[in-house]
Amino acid sequence: MSAEQFADRHIGPDPDDERRMLETVGYGSVDELMDAAIPEVIRWHGTLDLPEPASEREAIAELRALAARNTVAVSMIGLGYHGTHTPAVIRRNVLENPAWYTAYTPYQPEISQGRLEALLNFQTMVTDLTGLATANASMLDEGTAAAEAMTLARRASKSKSPVYVVDADTLPQTIAVITSRAEPLGIDVRVLDLAAEELPGEFFGLHLQYPGASGAVRDHAPLAEAAHAVGALVTVAADLLALTLLRPPGEVGADIAAGTTQRFGVPMGFGGPHAGYLAVRAGLERMLPGRLVGVSRDADGNPAYRLALQTREQHIRREKATSNICTAQVLLAVMAGMYAVYHGPGGLRKIAEHTHWAAARLAGALRVGGVEVADVPFFDTVTAVVPGRAAEVVAAAAERGVNLRLVDADRVGISCDETTTHAHLDAVCAAFGVPAAHGEIDTRLPEALLRTSDFLTHPVFRTHHSETAMLRYLRRLADFDYALDRGMIPLGSCTMKLNATTEMEPITWPEFAHIHPFAPEAQTAGYREMIAQLEAWLAEVTGYDAVSVQPNAGSQGELAGLLAIRAYHRQRGDGHRDVCLIPSSAHGTNAASAVMAGMRVVVVACDADGNVDLVDLDAKIDKHRDALAAIMVTYPSTHGVYETGIAQLCAKVHDAGGQVYVDGANLNALVGFAKPGKFGADVSHLNLHKTFCIPHGGGGPGVGPVAVRAHLAPFLPGDPSGVHVDGRPAISAARYGSAGILPIPWAYLRMMGAAGLTRATGVAVLAANYVAARLRGHFPVLYAGNKGLVAHECILDLRPLTKATGVSVDDVAKRLIDYGFHAPTMSFPVAGTLMVEPTESEDLAELDRFCDAMIAIRAEIDKVGSGEWPAGDNPLSNAPHTAAMVSGDEWPHPYPRSVGAYPAQDRAGKYWPPVRRIDGAYGDRNLVCSCPSPEAFES
Amino acid sequence: MSAEQFADRHIGPDPDDERRMLETVGYGSVDELMDAAIPEVIRWHGTLDLPEPASEREAIAELRALAARNTVAVSMIGLGYHGTHTPAVIRRNVLENPAWYTAYTPYQPEISQGRLEALLNFQTMVTDLTGLATANASMLDEGTAAAEAMTLARRASKSKSPVYVVDADTLPQTIAVITSRAEPLGIDVRVLDLAAEELPGEFFGLHLQYPGASGAVRDHAPLAEAAHAVGALVTVAADLLALTLLRPPGEVGADIAAGTTQRFGVPMGFGGPHAGYLAVRAGLERMLPGRLVGVSRDADGNPAYRLALQTREQHIRREKATSNICTAQVLLAVMAGMYAVYHGPGGLRKIAEHTHWAAARLAGALRVGGVEVADVPFFDTVTAVVPGRAAEVVAAAAERGVNLRLVDADRVGISCDETTTHAHLDAVCAAFGVPAAHGEIDTRLPEALLRTSDFLTHPVFRTHHSETAMLRYLRRLADFDYALDRGMIPLGSCTMKLNATTEMEPITWPEFAHIHPFAPEAQTAGYREMIAQLEAWLAEVTGYDAVSVQPNAGSQGELAGLLAIRAYHRQRGDGHRDVCLIPSSAHGTNAASAVMAGMRVVVVACDADGNVDLVDLDAKIDKHRDALAAIMVTYPSTHGVYETGIAQLCAKVHDAGGQVYVDGANLNALVGFAKPGKFGADVSHLNLHKTFCIPHGGGGPGVGPVAVRAHLAPFLPGDPSGVHVDGRPAISAARYGSAGILPIPWAYLRMMGAAGLTRATGVAVLAANYVAARLRGHFPVLYAGNKGLVAHECILDLRPLTKATGVSVDDVAKRLIDYGFHAPTMSFPVAGTLMVEPTESEDLAELDRFCDAMIAIRAEIDKVGSGEWPAGDNPLSNAPHTAAMVSGDEWPHPYPRSVGAYPAQDRAGKYWPPVRRIDGAYGDRNLVCSCPSPEAFES
Repeated sequence: MSAEQFADRHIGPDPDDERRMLETVGYGSVDELMDAAIPEVIRWHGTLDLPEPASEREAIAELRALAARNTVAVSMIGLGYHGTHTPAVIRRNVLENPAWYTAYTPYQPEISQGRLEALLNFQTMVTDLTGLATANASMLDEGTAAAEAMTLARRASKSKSPVYVVDADTLPQTIAVITSRAEPLGIDVRVLDLAAEELPGEFFGLHLQYPGASGAVRDHAPLAEAAHAVGALVTVAADLLALTLLRPPGEVGADIAAGTTQRFGVPMGFGGPHAGYLAVRAGLERMLPGRLVGVSRDADGNPAYRLALQTREQHIRREKATSNICTAQVLLAVMAGMYAVYHGPGGLRKIAEHTHWAAARLAGALRVGGVEVADVPFFDTVTAVVPGRAAEVVAAAAERGVNLRLVDADRVGISCDETTTHAHLDAVCAAFGVPAAHGEIDTRLPEALLRTSDFLTHPVFRTHHSETAMLRYLRRLADFDYALDRGMIPLGSCTMKLNATTEMEPITWPEFAHIHPFAPEAQTAGYREMIAQLEAWLAEVTGYDAVSVQPNAGSQGELAGLLAIRAYHRQRGDGHRDVCLIPSSAHGTNAASAVMAGMRVVVVACDADGNVDLVDLDAKIDKHRDALAAIMVTYPSTHGVYETGIAQLCAKVHDAGGQVYVDGANLNALVGFAKPGKFGADVSHLNLHKTFCIPHGGGGPGVGPVAVRAHLAPFLPGDPSGVHVDGRPAISAARYGSAGILPIPWAYLRMMGAAGLTRATGVAVLAANYVAARLRGHFPVLYAGNKGLVAHECILDLRPLTKATGVSVDDVAKRLIDYGFHAPTMSFPVAGTLMVEPTESEDLAELDRFCDAMIAIRAEIDKVGSGEWPAGDNPLSNAPHTAAMVSGDEWPHPYPRSVGAYPAQDRAGKYWPPVRRIDGAYGDRNLVCSCPSPEAFES
Repeated sequence: MSAEQFADRHIGPDPDDERRMLETVGYGSVDELMDAAIPEVIRWHGTLDLPEPASEREAIAELRALAARNTVAVSMIGLGYHGTHTPAVIRRNVLENPAWYTAYTPYQPEISQGRLEALLNFQTMVTDLTGLATANASMLDEGTAAAEAMTLARRASKSKSPVYVVDADTLPQTIAVITSRAEPLGIDVRVLDLAAEELPGEFFGLHLQYPGASGAVRDHAPLAEAAHAVGALVTVAADLLALTLLRPPGEVGADIAAGTTQRFGVPMGFGGPHAGYLAVRAGLERMLPGRLVGVSRDADGNPAYRLALQTREQHIRREKATSNICTAQVLLAVMAGMYAVYHGPGGLRKIAEHTHWAAARLAGALRVGGVEVADVPFFDTVTAVVPGRAAEVVAAAAERGVNLRLVDADRVGISCDETTTHAHLDAVCAAFGVPAAHGEIDTRLPEALLRTSDFLTHPVFRTHHSETAMLRYLRRLADFDYALDRGMIPLGSCTMKLNATTEMEPITWPEFAHIHPFAPEAQTAGYREMIAQLEAWLAEVTGYDAVSVQPNAGSQGELAGLLAIRAYHRQRGDGHRDVCLIPSSAHGTNAASAVMAGMRVVVVACDADGNVDLVDLDAKIDKHRDALAAIMVTYPSTHGVYETGIAQLCAKVHDAGGQVYVDGANLNALVGFAKPGKFGADVSHLNLHKTFCIPHGGGGPGVGPVAVRAHLAPFLPGDPSGVHVDGRPAISAARYGSAGILPIPWAYLRMMGAAGLTRATGVAVLAANYVAARLRGHFPVLYAGNKGLVAHECILDLRPLTKATGVSVDDVAKRLIDYGFHAPTMSFPVAGTLMVEPTESEDLAELDRFCDAMIAIRAEIDKVGSGEWPAGDNPLSNAPHTAAMVSGDEWPHPYPRSVGAYPAQDRAGKYWPPVRRIDGAYGDRNLVCSCPSPEAFES
């Protein structure tokens, strides 16, 4: 009834802006432009079958109704997901703060020092608690972290054995993910009850849970010793909270530790997102997958943070790839790290003691009441033995609002946590039919298992314990960074657009935040309906028949899609089909995922226009016809072009018996205008954190659903909890992946509706063509499609300028900081270029501010070229300029301070980076990946 | 059960800090210190009778339970409170953002440019919409704004008549407040139905509602003309939303406009807080009460904002006071102004059209259904005539979840708003028993009433319409400002301490936010219980017998307290008692409130130690014994001292038949250690925004409950809605004042408990004495009590240094900005001094950072004194230094840039003010109080 449309708030340019942009680009309307840009052969002319767009309040009301159909019970299921109190100061100032959640991955470290410091805190927390040397800046979840640990062990082990031993007391979903990952790689997973069974003679790695899924805390030192004796590496999947009381993995012989940091203040969210972790002993740090933050120095020699060993990632080397992960869980890792900062070592230990005390009190009460409790040391989880009565006890507890774990017909697991109260324990006792009266509370743990080493000794963990201090620390770090709340982040291929507040608000509602992934179905009806709607809408948007939201990152979606193709071929007796064609312009992840799916990568060339070379494609198909499993292409291409040959390409591959995988990274250029599932593709993954508005969170969470045509639907991801056994692969640890943030894309789709989504695509393409039109005279625009149009992004070629002047793409990227911008994507997909994706959310004023900055920079480059400014000492080579630099008592540079400081007009609101240009190579040579001492910062 | 205490998060110093602070101050424990500091004669040795402290989650759980007992109905009651959609981007980034809500009043304009710009937007919005020349930066609510308009009219009118005419179609609560305010001032309020009755022959002012409370829109021009003819001023209380469609007051002859901006995105909150407004025609601007933002220029000649005509306020001139208001409703004014920025003129007009259309649709349907509807033009409210059935209809609507207004037995009022939907209208029709089918929808308004003039033409109202643009604008402005989330704000008398997130979260829950103040009692049980608990706890803390939370600012609490005293004397036949004794050190508000309560102010001298001079007190009592009504003192004194004579003082006044008013501004120094209600006072007001953690919001909301001993309880504020008629004064427009933010002090008290509150007081006093001890050697500390101890704040005397060096208290305040601090209170209560109140929330590191800065500044002053730096050109006289200044191409100053820029160590995290020192006098001479054109900012 209200005239207000959310789309008008989401889309930056208003009708006036649009008109002026169209004039510049030379079209009369967005429709005309799109007709010209998109090849008719893929064009879809329908109207998306989505509900009429809801207003922001209507969407919120619908989500409130869905939320109301979830039941927030007391969760004592455990299994890696625990109740936790998110400190309110962290919830409000991190999870609900756009300065944190709209930030991009810290590839531009000079404008990312805040989240890099927060991640270094996280890494330090993990290494301190695990007792290992180096931890990365988070993994997607415990299951995938454990799987990465397995492949790391395989790379590092001298053993030639294909056997990987997993202790049976491991979380079932971890076993499921490990097994799914192992199979295509030819790894032979053996799940053994190592409390009873012997280790095999040869194996390359050993996975142990600590404490076990059953709650049992065992001394793993003898097993580790035995593993090392045969050249195997040992992974301990450890609960960080328990490690405040228990001997850490690093002290019992673990080479690797993996796990989750969920219970450090991150809500369960029906399975995610949470930050997994991965830590290794000294000597293995350069084999760590994922992102690693390290300390280096800036141009002034001051300590500065950046991603270490970064070249491994964006350039994951195709066939030699060892992992496909890109995205981490930065936002959640920041929360977990800040939880440790806020509580400090003493506070964490108190929480652990409370947790253990609650479990001990429960064990005591059950025993006094005559219930058998497994007679092993435990931390937070006790297993009660109630022959034949387990289901009945679990049901009785549920009636009292408490969820317990049904282990089997005879056993019930009960996990305590930070949130456990007397009332909860009393309810559990009642469910067992025993008196709540305190039994003997024996909180002693065996001496040999007790932690004696110190942890979290860095001052950061001892300084910010009042809320005032914490608030200021969070503000200080946030202020270091440049995120979407300051200005445009024109990152090609990353679609950095509005993450609307209305989309974000529901994720912190208790009814979405506090649901265990294995909660009884009756308690999750709202969640499941919301997810079913979202999957249906995504299928409609993409033209596919089925969607699974389980993959919790784009890379995981790729793997899921390729595994579906693999399973499809095998089911048809085509198991020998293992060649995956990948164009040379593809994102490195594609190849890495193919390798992980057990495929061989064959590269297809691109022609001079950047399009897939159909002649070379024919040749490669001919050569590998019998072995052809699939082709993976991105559409529009990573060059930002609507390739006209796409339909032909699909037909050729299909004719040869292959499947077509279209990477959905660039779906923002298609929604409403073309459907991959209708123009020839069999499978895609989507990036909900690109096209569908999940914020990048500073480098995660991402969500990468996989969408398939009907023939691949039977091979979509299954339920890793083992509750719904169906033989499908487990791609992430939880059935619905990062369910907790799915209200975001749900709200986006619900509020935009068919017309809004379609208009957004048109404006995104218009904006890219506007930028291309304005900048073409200053920087060559590489590649274009129909009528010289680009799709939703454009590549600016700096190579001729670099050759002529020595000014590099890096110099331009850093100089953009001085102008108040985040740099575009650098040197991808073509080295020496910048790829600009403005998205539909930037209004004309901001687009012009960016174009003006680029044009001004071009003039600066010319001054270097003409010799007016020397090559090694000019505003470009010295960029970014810090306030400290431009206000230094000395100014030895051949250009005025004002040129360094204020190339753009806005003085009062200028963003100042906290450090000068960072020397990445120095940091890689001198690898330091935990918090440096405060003295390091003294000038 | 959890070991975690909220008090440990609220109180900054940890036990280690405390120990070190005690060493410096020279006491073994906080108890020892307090025993020494507080005079035994007032000391209370009990334990506060409060519930055991709740943890943060327990408090939230209890508030959720209370909230659940409120019912969020569709509100169509109207009467100045309407449903509205707070844009989510504004809720999250203003109302839920500590950068906005923890800011202080913008007395230091250089570090307040963000909220000053936001307030200028608000003022521009009000002047544009009302068609008047100048608006102030918000009033407490519509009722008090209307009362201030009355007294303004009296000052400005040439008429000697004591008569103030109020049209009967005015909001009942406005009439109640006007009447309450008028009586002690000898103003004769005549409420007349001007649609039927004649104006009297003589009157000084006329109050009209537009549209009327009944919904009727009348042409007020003839009445205005008639009023002007007798020298009276005309106030139009106008609905700003209606003014997007209707001729504005300025075009129908109004001299003054007053009203509320609640429906511009500010939740109803069971009555408040919302921003009232007050605007005047040209020529009256210098008579405006309250805070007024104006444009001036900084040391570089750039435009800069600051409070205009500010000297009026902090120095409200005792007997000559014309208003006692200090606090505005800045946070809410910012929200309302941003609502206009986000919607722009077109969006606001659409909302108004929707609102009017809904009312017209309803009127049509009712008429078609045979219900009589008052036959007058209307905007959003229709009055239906249902003889004898009104109560029944209202009840039937309530059953359908819709609240209507019961006008009387025969009439029902229905107000539409932005949130009204078809479903709501259908429900109303059903309640009337008429078909929902559309009748004729006649949205025409009489030509003569239609607005033809443009409004909101400034670019700021046409630029930020996408959420992305809005988000960035809010961030940009927030970044200009210094608030508690950056560092310490050591403001003496203002108690700038932690506003904990857990205290803040509940205020945006729908069950607290979306309740109409006149909602049926059955729907507000949770609110009322929460308020009753809060009042009881405040009574326990202060030792009084009864508390009213109605006063929505400290000044209003003062007035309420004095009116209670006045009524008490009158009831006892002592109506002639009208002298109010006020010590010379008192805050100007005290005297102003006394004047407003119809009292004569007699000043009592202070002795050389800053204490009330008991000899002079005796003399004044003797002189005014028969007329003595009251004494108003602040305790501890505004000098930050526990005066030992307080008990004697109380006794002397009581002996003479007077009442003792203790201003609760400094209650943070007493809680748990002394109770004003027990050591001799009869009444106090409290500042919930000081001691009880309601954030200052950049200059409001404040809340100033009044607390009294039993004999004054019958005279506490009444219910201004008229529903609960009881003859008590109406202090603010809503029965419970700013009820919407009362969960904040509730949570604070609930989580701190007796021990936490008491410890907070001790640590606050310890911190002040620590600062005094560290700084005493560098700046004389003025005034002290027992054993040389101060209370919770200390005064640093700069006068000798100023005399010797010319460095002023202003220079030091501005230089503190360069060091990363907000200045302490300047020149209050003693000109030429700084008053420092550290509060209990600042940890030792921050206290030391402040002390170090002050000591370093002392050394800088010495350099000026020694002639090393010239008097007019040194880091103090040039402070604050902007980044633009220190990076200027020229540096003409005789000290290095680094000294100007970075006197303190932290470089990366430095806060840079956006402007240099502001010339306030220039702005007062050239008064500009609306948004300047963008060209003004071109450098």
